[in-house]
Amino acid sequence: MYIPTLDDMKTARERVTPYIHRTPVLTSEFLNDLTGAELFFKCENFQKAGAFKVRGACNAVFGLPDDMLAKGVATHSSGNHALSLSYAAGRRGIPCHVVMPRTAPQAKKDAVKGYGGIITECEPSTSSREAVFAKVEAETGAEFVHPYNDPRVIAGQATCSAELIEQVKGLDAVVAPIGGGGMISGTCLTLSNLAPEVKIYAAEPLNADDAARSFRAGHIIADDAPETVADGLKVPLKELTWHFVSNHVTDILTATEDEIVDAMKLIWKRMKIVMEPSSAVPLATILKDKETFAGKRVGIIITGGNVDLDSLPWMEK
Amino acid sequence: MYIPTLDDMKTARERVTPYIHRTPVLTSEFLNDLTGAELFFKCENFQKAGAFKVRGACNAVFGLPDDMLAKGVATHSSGNHALSLSYAAGRRGIPCHVVMPRTAPQAKKDAVKGYGGIITECEPSTSSREAVFAKVEAETGAEFVHPYNDPRVIAGQATCSAELIEQVKGLDAVVAPIGGGGMISGTCLTLSNLAPEVKIYAAEPLNADDAARSFRAGHIIADDAPETVADGLKVPLKELTWHFVSNHVTDILTATEDEIVDAMKLIWKRMKIVMEPSSAVPLATILKDKETFAGKRVGIIITGGNVDLDSLPWMEK
Repeated sequence: MYIPTLDDMKTARERVTPYIHRTPVLTSEFLNDLTGAELFFKCENFQKAGAFKVRGACNAVFGLPDDMLAKGVATHSSGNHALSLSYAAGRRGIPCHVVMPRTAPQAKKDAVKGYGGIITECEPSTSSREAVFAKVEAETGAEFVHPYNDPRVIAGQATCSAELIEQVKGLDAVVAPIGGGGMISGTCLTLSNLAPEVKIYAAEPLNADDAARSFRAGHIIADDAPETVADGLKVPLKELTWHFVSNHVTDILTATEDEIVDAMKLIWKRMKIVMEPSSAVPLATILKDKETFAGKRVGIIITGGNVDLDSLPWMEK
Repeated sequence: MYIPTLDDMKTARERVTPYIHRTPVLTSEFLNDLTGAELFFKCENFQKAGAFKVRGACNAVFGLPDDMLAKGVATHSSGNHALSLSYAAGRRGIPCHVVMPRTAPQAKKDAVKGYGGIITECEPSTSSREAVFAKVEAETGAEFVHPYNDPRVIAGQATCSAELIEQVKGLDAVVAPIGGGGMISGTCLTLSNLAPEVKIYAAEPLNADDAARSFRAGHIIADDAPETVADGLKVPLKELTWHFVSNHVTDILTATEDEIVDAMKLIWKRMKIVMEPSSAVPLATILKDKETFAGKRVGIIITGGNVDLDSLPWMEK
C-alpha cells in the first residue's frame, strides 16, 4: 500500500491548478454568533463539476502516462466522483467509463453524460456492480480510479486544505465530512505536514456512523447500505483512508438526520449558498458540541453543491 | 425634486462602507456558453440583510442629523427595504418603525423584528397602509425613508455599480431588475457619470411591465396590484426614478413568469447560489434576447437572496 506524501500533494497541486477553481472562503457573522466560534467555510460547492472530488480526479487523469491515455479511465460511482472523473477525462480528451446502477436518478446520468462520461448500467447491488465493472475494465483496459482509496485521489483532495491554510491564518481546527474518507485523508496529509497544530475533526451522519465506530474500535467496521440524507457519506473506510484517519484525526463527531437537514437549511438561508446535505454535517456537529469549538478559529469544508432542486430534504420531512 | 449627484454617491460610499459588504462578482463558464455573452454577476444576495437595499437604507440612516436620531426612521414595506432599514437603524441604535400588512408572511415579520424593527400592522390595501403610516409618522415624528423615491436611497444604491466597475473592467452593458426603479436609478447615476459608454438595461416581469410601458409611452404608467413571482418588482416608478429611467436607460426588456423561474433555477443549479426570483429577471431577458448581448461583457445585478426556502417557485408550478 503506497501512502501519498506531501510531495505528492505538491505535484498534484501544480498538475490540477489549470483545471480547477481556487474556491473562496466565506464567513457568516450570524453563524459565528450562533456557535460562539469563528467559522471559515471553504466553498467547494463552487468547484468545477460542483464538488471537491474534481481535485483527486484531475490529479489521477492528468498524471496518467501517455501510453495509458488511449484506453482512458473507469470507475463505479453514482455521485460526484463520476461527474468529476468525467469532467477531468473530458478536459484531457480521453474516455471515461462509469458503471452506475440503472436505478440512479436520470438527472445524475444526464450530468455524467453532459461531461462526456460513458455509462454502463448495473443492477443496484454490490455483486452486480462488481461483476459489471470487472467486465468493463477487462473489455476497455481503462485505468481504474477508485473514488477515495487511491493515493492519486487523496493527494488531489489534499490540495483543498493547502489552499485553506493560505487563505485563513491561525486555524485551530478543521471539520470535514467523512464517508469513505478521501477528503479527510487529504486534509490529514496536508495539515499533519504543514500545520500540525490544527486539530482535524471528521463529521458523520449518526445513521452511517461506521467511521466513528471504526475510530473507537481501532479497526475498520463497514456497514451494509446505511440510509442517510447525506448520500455522499454512505460508503465505508478502506485501508488507505483508515491509515490517515487512525493516525491523524482528533475525533469523529456525529449528527442526526434532523440536525443535518436543519444545519443545511440554516446555511442556505443565512449564507445564500446551495450545498449538499453531506456538507452540512460539520456545522450540525459543531452546533451540538459548541464547547469543543467555542472561541476557536474553525475551518469547515463545504464539500459540494450538487443537489436535486426538485427534491430538497426539508420538503420531504 | 432634488436629483442626487455623483458627489452624493461618493458621500454615500464613505458613509455606508463600514456597515455593508463589498460583494463579490461571480462568473459561470456554463452560462457564458449558453448566452454567448461574458456575464459578471454582482452578488448582492450576499449583502448584509440579504439585499442591495441596505446600501440606500444605511445612507439614509447614517446621514441623519443628530437632532433627528431620537425619533428614528419609518417606512412601509413588507420586503427587503423593511429588513434593511431595520438593520441600519439597529446599527445606529435608533428606532425603526415599519408598517406592514397583517397578511405578510410571519417569516418576514420575524425577520424585521430580528433586526430590531418595530412593526405596526395595517390591512392589505393601499388606503389602510397610507392611513396607518400617516398615524405612525405623526405619533412618532420618525423620518420617512421611502423604499426608492428618495435621493438618499438612490445615492446609496448607486454605490453598487461603483464597486462593479472597479471589479470588472471594460463592461459593455449592465442589466438590473426594475420595480420602483431604485437600483436602476442608482446604476444610472453612477454609470452616466463614471462610465457613460456602458449601456444600461432594465429587466422587468411581463406580468408587471408598467416600467416598460412607461418607457415607451414617455410618462409614468402605474398598474394596480400586478401579480408576479418576482415580488420585489410589483411597485411602480415615481418621479425621481422616472427621471433616471427616462434619461439614461437604453431599453427595458421583459420576461414571462416561466422564463423567470427557469432562469432562477438555472442560476441556483449552475452557480450554487441562493437568490430571489427578482434577481433572475436579467438572465431571463438575456436568454430570450441573445443577439443584443452576444460577444458583450455584461454586468448583472443579483439584487437579493431573501427567499422562503419552504416555498420555492418551481415547487408550486
